[in-house]
Formats: sequence, C-alpha cells, structure tokens
Amino acid sequence: MKKFYLLTPGPTPIPPEAAAQAALPIIHHRTHEFGDVFDEVSKGLKVVFQTKNDVFILTSSGTGAMESAVANILSPGDKAIVASSGAFGERWVKIAQAYGANVVPVREEWGKPVDPGKIKEALAANPDAKAVFCQHTETSTGVVNDLKAFGDIVAATPAVLVVDAISGLGGEELRMDDWKLNVVVAGSQKGLMVAPGLAFAGVDEKAWKVVEAAKNPRFYFDYRRIKKSIADKETPFTPAVTLLQSLKATLRMIQEDGMDKVWERHRKLARATRAGMQALGLELFATVPCSVLTSAKLPESVPGGKLVNWMRDDLGVSLAGGQEHLKGKIVRLAHMGFMDQFDILVGLSALETGLRKFGMSVPVGKASHAATEALALV
Amino acid sequence: MKKFYLLTPGPTPIPPEAAAQAALPIIHHRTHEFGDVFDEVSKGLKVVFQTKNDVFILTSSGTGAMESAVANILSPGDKAIVASSGAFGERWVKIAQAYGANVVPVREEWGKPVDPGKIKEALAANPDAKAVFCQHTETSTGVVNDLKAFGDIVAATPAVLVVDAISGLGGEELRMDDWKLNVVVAGSQKGLMVAPGLAFAGVDEKAWKVVEAAKNPRFYFDYRRIKKSIADKETPFTPAVTLLQSLKATLRMIQEDGMDKVWERHRKLARATRAGMQALGLELFATVPCSVLTSAKLPESVPGGKLVNWMRDDLGVSLAGGQEHLKGKIVRLAHMGFMDQFDILVGLSALETGLRKFGMSVPVGKASHAATEALALV
Repeated sequence: MKKFYLLTPGPTPIPPEAAAQAALPIIHHRTHEFGDVFDEVSKGLKVVFQTKNDVFILTSSGTGAMESAVANILSPGDKAIVASSGAFGERWVKIAQAYGANVVPVREEWGKPVDPGKIKEALAANPDAKAVFCQHTETSTGVVNDLKAFGDIVAATPAVLVVDAISGLGGEELRMDDWKLNVVVAGSQKGLMVAPGLAFAGVDEKAWKVVEAAKNPRFYFDYRRIKKSIADKETPFTPAVTLLQSLKATLRMIQEDGMDKVWERHRKLARATRAGMQALGLELFATVPCSVLTSAKLPESVPGGKLVNWMRDDLGVSLAGGQEHLKGKIVRLAHMGFMDQFDILVGLSALETGLRKFGMSVPVGKASHAATEALALV
Repeated sequence: MKKFYLLTPGPTPIPPEAAAQAALPIIHHRTHEFGDVFDEVSKGLKVVFQTKNDVFILTSSGTGAMESAVANILSPGDKAIVASSGAFGERWVKIAQAYGANVVPVREEWGKPVDPGKIKEALAANPDAKAVFCQHTETSTGVVNDLKAFGDIVAATPAVLVVDAISGLGGEELRMDDWKLNVVVAGSQKGLMVAPGLAFAGVDEKAWKVVEAAKNPRFYFDYRRIKKSIADKETPFTPAVTLLQSLKATLRMIQEDGMDKVWERHRKLARATRAGMQALGLELFATVPCSVLTSAKLPESVPGGKLVNWMRDDLGVSLAGGQEHLKGKIVRLAHMGFMDQFDILVGLSALETGLRKFGMSVPVGKASHAATEALALV
C-alpha cells in the first residue's frame, strides 16, 4: 500500500467529482447534450480568462495550443519578438522558427522575469514585429512576468501580444481584457484541474485581424474553422468529450469560489511554501516568484535528480526537479489547482525528509512550522 | 430514466474496465510508472496495426493525425494523389491543399470504393507524386477500400501510401507490414474503444526517409521529435495520460481475443446488420460494405435528420445520419469496438420503430429475425 501525492506543475490532481464525470458513458459530440456541455464550458472559460472574447477549445497538449498561436498569427518571414527566461520561453523560439519566423529573442537569465523595458526597446527597434510571445508564469523557473506592463507596452504598437498561460491560468491572477492580452493559450492539466488532452486559446479582435491574414499552413488548429463551429455549439473535429465533461465540473467549482478567491488561495499557498522552503535553509530560485509553483536552489552536495526520484518512489510524494541546465540543481513544488494547505505541509515534510536523506542538515519540523505560521493555521 | 445506446461510428462505447482506469488518480508522465504504460501501449498498438514499425502516439483528434501525416510527408508544391469517395477523402484534399500540395484527386462516386486501377493510372501519369492518400474504411459511406491492392501498386513506385484507418482500425482487417502500407493513422474513439483525444501514426522505413526530408513547418506533430522520445518511453509533450490508461486496458482486451477473432466478430456483426437492414426493405448504400459500419439508403418519404434525432431523443438509441450531400438521405449504424450482437438487435429495432414512426411501412420483427439468423443465434 502506498499513497501518492502529486505536487508537480502539471499534471495536477483531478478532483474526484471531475474524474468521475470522465468515467461516465460517453456522449456523442454532434448532439444537443454535447451542445449544452460546450456552451457551459465556453462560458466558464471566459470567466477564468476574464474575457469577453471567444476561447477556442482544442484537443491537444498545451504545446499544441502554443503552436496554434504561432500558425494562426505568423506568416513565413514575419518578425516575432520572444520574451524568454526559461524552457517554455525557448519553446516559443523553437516553434516560431519551425514556422519560418524571424525571431528576435529578448532573453533574461533563468529565474528572473523578463524586463518590460526590454520588450519596449525591442519593439522600438523592430517596429515591423508582428507579435510578442511570452509566458505568464514560466513553469521551468517559477517566475511570474508582469503581463499588465507587457500589455500596456504592446497595445501601443501594431504587434499582437501572445501569452502562454498554460501553468498560470486558474491560479495566478490574469485579466485578459483589462490587461490587453491579445492571445492567451492554456492547458487543461494545471489550474483547470482536468487530465491533460485539452488546450485553449482566447483570441481578441486585434489578434483576429492578424489571424485572418496569416499565411502559415494550418488545418487542425485553424482558428477560422474553430470560430465558425462555435455557432453550432461544437468543435470542428471530434473533441476529447470525456475531458470536457470533467472540465464542466471543475469550472463549476472554480466559479463557485470566484476568481478573486481562487487567486488569493494560490497566493496564500505560495507564501506558505516559500516560508517553508526558506525554513529548510534553501534559497528561493525565482526573483519574482509566481503563485502556482515555488522553486528553490539545492545545495551542491544534494543530488537533485536522486532526491526527486527518492521522494516519489519511497515517500510517494511527487515534486519536480529542474529542466535543461537546471537539472539536478533546483526543486519545484507546485501549488496549483486542486491543492490545499495540507498538500503544502505534505510536500515540505517530504522535502525535509529527502534533504536529510541526502546528507543536508535540516532542522526538524521547522518547515512545517513556518508554513503553518504563514498559513495562519496557528 | 432513459438508457442510452451509442451506435455511432465514433465515439463508440467505452468498456467499463477502461472508463474506470481513466478515473483513477492521474500519474505524472515523466516517471517509470508512465514509462511502463507507454511501453505496454506501444507494443499493443503494434499488434493492432500488425506492424514492426514504431506507432507514434499523439494527443489530438484523428484529424490531427491526418494533418501530422501531411505535414511530415509533404513539402510545399509536392504532388499528392488523393483517393477519395467520401467526406474523409475530401478531408485529405483540404489538408494537403492547406499545406501547399499540388493535389491530384482520384475521385469515385460516394458509396463506391476507389478503383485500384485508377490509382495505378494516376501514378503512371504523375511519376513525381510524393504520396498517395486514402481511407481504409470511408466513415461517411461505409465503404472499404482494397488496401492490399493499393499497397502493391504504390510499393512499385517511389510514392508513399498514407492510410486513414481512423474508423477501421481494430475492426476491419488491416495488415500494415504485409500490405505495404507506409503510413497508417488512427484515433482512439473507434475500434480502440477509448474516449476521443488520442491519435496514432504508424510509419515505416520508406516513409521515414520522406519524413526526414520534408519541408513543411511542424513542431507539435513532428515525427522526428516524437521518435526521439520513444527511447525514453515517453512523449515529447504532456500526453492525455488518463486516456492512455484506458487504452492500456482496451489493448489488453483486444489482445486477449487476438486480431483474427476481433476482425471475424466485426464481419459477423456487419453481415447481421446488412441482413436486418435489407429485411426492413432498405437498400444498402455501400457497394463494397466495410465491417465496422453499415449504411443504407432511406426512402425519399423518410426525413433522415428527423429520424435520427427522434431515435436518439425518444428511444435513446444513437445512429448516424448522412454527411454533406447525403444529409437526410442515408442512415449509418456502427458496429465497431465495444459492440456485440445484442447491440445490433437494439439498433435494428430502433430503426424499425423509427421508420414506422415516419410513415414507412416496415414488417414487424423481420429485421431482428433476419439479423438473428445471420448471427446464427437461432
């Protein structure tokens, strides 16, 4: 017997009410029963995206939604500014290059947010840039970017701002319309608390004009085809019906709380996690940490890969390690979606046990104490 | 209280053992637990595809897999022969055109298979054709193509044969290697008995050389990236983990029976359905009917759309109507995947009731009788 605790930045735990929905007999996607699901989910997504725009529903991983934005916004040879300070920023670079874009990277050291001033400079130096691509929260480092500042800057230019909100949506405060974000893409398996397989793209009017003129090949991810089918309350191709049933359930849960409460809960969990990590003697990795995951540097003496594997295999607690050049060097504890204050205590306790196992001298119980204080449970 | 019977050509009913798997707590996709699932599913898919080649796992609808084949095989301006006698043949045309291909259509009247001789002629007239695209079973009409003949013809040329086996795989006899099929794409929600959201692409060595040289933009669906990740028993991007757990369960069920038995079961259900339809006084629509669905013409006096809706809403039995110019003119009863002889009786009984409701004079009980005889239940 082993209990498993999934505290990774996606997939995240699925609430039983949502998991059970996905196990019910499947309904056909060209029926009024499905139309009702499609309608309810579409309305719920607008609340989470904080937008009046259409939010397109795709059957794919989050990366599929990123590619959909590139394919629908850029034409071959277009100039694309990419704000990057992590693995997912670099993914924008790779996708845009695969689609023949002329990429102007605005890179920042991993662990730091991208300076809005540098985006302003890049736009001034490249007035012909078709779009600016960025992350809301950079999952590989735990940093949050200042999207509101990005939005103000890009809105003053002809460029379109495309935001990867895959790990942030439904956890980190995001206001698509108020912040003037033109395209926002997301996935199902993070703050939306559904299994992976669905992705989303909110597209505003400024972006829509670009979509209609874009010249890259696209069919499955073609926003024009998807937009047309919305009138019939359906998707152009057979969607992941069972995951949409789950999503209907989680969107109801989210809306019962309301976005302000959802964002505040994540902020509180983040504060507690940071307090706990620091009480363990770890240094936080992100200079501007997001609310959906917390990353911390590991001492050089601690083998990060082995630590994460041991916690998972021996304790049943899954945290994430580092990616690319951060492999083995940081640990990432997620607090997004269906996670609560007690999950944080579990994660910190496992981390404390693991660090001790790998030779680090850590104070017993201090992390839980600090987190509990921060959670104001005491 | 209403019982629902889903007898449509996708999505199809999901066995409870598979549905329950999808509702269990989700596992992370970068773990050895997932590696075991990936490994088992990959091996099982090879059995169903009857191939020694890699079968790539995609998180998308079946159409995503079709697009993946186009994007990975064709370069802009390439000549592509498309064998089409239905809505999904036309989908190949549209996708190939979206990717800048020079499409040479080999069209046949809907309801008929595509004549292998015409493909041979098209290849002779277009020796520079990069690929031939076709359907195994054309879902919109219920026709099966002679893939073995297609394979022999295309194998004698430099072209690559790309097969849409989305509705046929796991029901209609298919032997990828023996029949020299170079690329075979499929989806999860038909004969594989899983919810929609997963798709597959088997790719052989002849096709692989073309993939490596192809110049169309691709990232999410890039076979090169997917192939690399197989060594690590994973997918490049977060896959639809819960659906893969379902698939593990259904592939076990399929392999317990063995492919010969699976194909024979579908042939038997098809024979019974045809006998029942004809006993109702309906004329079969497909000249060479497949084993996974049966289509029949409706008398002009019967409003097909209303018939299908009434059967679904009032009787709880979902059949499919016609698509495009066949809308309202044919009815399609699926017998693919998790459907058995008793489902056929339900479908025929509902159809008999519906036809009578809409004014057709149909003999009472004769369809069930004929089907039962064909099933050798008597």
